Amino acid sequence: SRSFDVVVFEGDGIGPEITAPTLDILRRVSEKSAYELVFNTLPAGANLYAKTGESLPATSLEAARNADAILLSAMGLLNIRKPDGTEISPQLDLRSELDLFAGVRPVRITPGLKTPLKLEEGKTVDFVLIRESTEGLFYSRGNGEVNQDEARETLVITRKTSEKLFKFAFNLARQRQSAGQGEGRVTCVDKANVFRAFAFFRDIFNGEARHYPELIADHAYVDATALWMVQKPWFFDVMVTENMFGDILSDLGAGLMGGLGVAPSADIGENHAVFQPCHGSVPDIAGLGIANPFAMILSATMMLDWLGIRHEQPELVRDGGLLRDAVDRVIASGRSTTRDLGGSSTTADAAAAVLQAF
Amino acid sequence: SRSFDVVVFEGDGIGPEITAPTLDILRRVSEKSAYELVFNTLPAGANLYAKTGESLPATSLEAARNADAILLSAMGLLNIRKPDGTEISPQLDLRSELDLFAGVRPVRITPGLKTPLKLEEGKTVDFVLIRESTEGLFYSRGNGEVNQDEARETLVITRKTSEKLFKFAFNLARQRQSAGQGEGRVTCVDKANVFRAFAFFRDIFNGEARHYPELIADHAYVDATALWMVQKPWFFDVMVTENMFGDILSDLGAGLMGGLGVAPSADIGENHAVFQPCHGSVPDIAGLGIANPFAMILSATMMLDWLGIRHEQPELVRDGGLLRDAVDRVIASGRSTTRDLGGSSTTADAAAAVLQAF
Ligand SMILES: CC(C)[C@H](C(=O)O)[C@@H](O)C(=O)O
Ligand SMILES: CC(C)[C@H](C(=O)O)[C@@H](O)C(=O)O
Repeated sequence: SRSFDVVVFEGDGIGPEITAPTLDILRRVSEKSAYELVFNTLPAGANLYAKTGESLPATSLEAARNADAILLSAMGLLNIRKPDGTEISPQLDLRSELDLFAGVRPVRITPGLKTPLKLEEGKTVDFVLIRESTEGLFYSRGNGEVNQDEARETLVITRKTSEKLFKFAFNLARQRQSAGQGEGRVTCVDKANVFRAFAFFRDIFNGEARHYPELIADHAYVDATALWMVQKPWFFDVMVTENMFGDILSDLGAGLMGGLGVAPSADIGENHAVFQPCHGSVPDIAGLGIANPFAMILSATMMLDWLGIRHEQPELVRDGGLLRDAVDRVIASGRSTTRDLGGSSTTADAAAAVLQAF
Repeated sequence: SRSFDVVVFEGDGIGPEITAPTLDILRRVSEKSAYELVFNTLPAGANLYAKTGESLPATSLEAARNADAILLSAMGLLNIRKPDGTEISPQLDLRSELDLFAGVRPVRITPGLKTPLKLEEGKTVDFVLIRESTEGLFYSRGNGEVNQDEARETLVITRKTSEKLFKFAFNLARQRQSAGQGEGRVTCVDKANVFRAFAFFRDIFNGEARHYPELIADHAYVDATALWMVQKPWFFDVMVTENMFGDILSDLGAGLMGGLGVAPSADIGENHAVFQPCHGSVPDIAGLGIANPFAMILSATMMLDWLGIRHEQPELVRDGGLLRDAVDRVIASGRSTTRDLGGSSTTADAAAAVLQAF
């Protein structure tokens, strides 16, 4: 049977307590199947930095590089910072070290979620935001120039990464379309009206679009996109944008779903991929056993999808889908949800309910 | 009687047809008062650029510089661009030429607006987003470096502008508090967890905050802010942020109000100010007489406020408030609104209704 090595970073705050039940679920799910998942839990994070001065040790990074997939929990702590005032974010290091250019952030408003939107009857919100995750403004991370009087950061967009990014977006739209999800639309989100770098970005997008004549390729300015995301979110299918814009819009997307507690993500490159919930480490509830594990479990479903497609193992894709359905059902039932979703379940109960619904 | 020179740029698309009734209303409002508004309409915009190669002639800029206030309508056209692919935006030129560092963008969800949010009973959304309008990423406008392989833009934050910006924000919060609006909270919106330039921005904010001990000064990351704006928008009072972030978040704010058709703005410096609706020139309905004039009229009310406070003429502040109330009443009535607000009125009818409600 095919076996996959998964490096796990439990992270900070609530990280470990949502990781444990997620690994447990993955073990149970894979038990019934012909593939095996082998977990290797390694150190990384802000707590580690506080103790050792390192947030992502070379051995951890090396293991991640050699793994089939990387599962990352919540990372970072507000009060542990680098000398320059920024936070410890090994997830950002992994994105750049492993060239994980495609940040995949699905936004699905399913029954039972506490969306703040009054959605028109019959409108379904199910889109994927692809956030470029290695360059854009984040290219500047750690390289910002600061003196007494001013500070500068540099936004960089490369043709090479943009081409890979747009290919990824168009392929995803095609995949979704053939799965009956989405109408095959890719929207390039930029600020080409003001910045040459975004006119460049859009040009590359238009170039790639020519290779996908069966798909709809359109454009939106980032400001207008923020507006449309609240006014007609059902319009979107696959959106693709620069790193900083994607950071903002994906949290907005999570807001539309009712919160970060149900927002999974994947950062995908040509050879590696990290799967991680979008939420932070919520230290104020850490250790209480009441953290919401759903975003972490949903991130794990994205890992199953990705491994399955990459290694042509349909069983994993099937299990990813079934596990996602199970989470959806638990949320729809309104029972066994954690406090942030309006329920009163513990982390363990919520995870158990998912297994039962599987 | 005190007379004020107002330079008017009618702009492109629907610009002229929403300007005419707005000036008419301002004339009627001021007629009954002891002050006078003298309008001087001058050329600027994308159409002008197409004809002459200039979007903001030196004579127009000079007149704007000498005026007491500048009223700008919708500007720019998608199909008229500079050789580098960016659009014609004389509003951006004015912001930098006249050092209009404080972009003031109020978000008020008043009765009758088509907000996409299901707001909890008793929750009032009434906040002001202050978008720095001369630097940040927009410093790079026109200076982006592009070659075959990559493109770069530079984000710049200066201490000098940031200090003025934060002073402005704290003073506005104080003003709002003494007017019974808002609890005296200023939220600095940044990405200080990742970028040194934003840690710098936040430090300067904290420094200014010390001079306003009676106000609440807090911070939020820009991504989390986008999420909270849909989840608990009533929390915010005055928000202050970088130019690009402010561009995105203010459109999101407009989305929460039901659209750009009711989103006014002001760009304010130490010696000059521009008042302009947030929406674009909507060329597809230009000339039909059905454009929504409310954002333009609301922008004019901000002009009356600003002139009144600056020149210690309470009459203008009073009229600004009354005119804003009149627009609110027309919107609340659900009658005499334009198509984008769910009604079927013409621009002229909508404007007439405002005058009548005044
Ligand atoms: C924690 C932070 C550094 C990170 C980011 O900005 O990318 C997070 O907001 C995310 O969206 O993954
Ligand atoms: C039209 C555009 C150049 C402008 C901007 O980006 O500032 C607009 O979006 C705004 O918000 O005033």
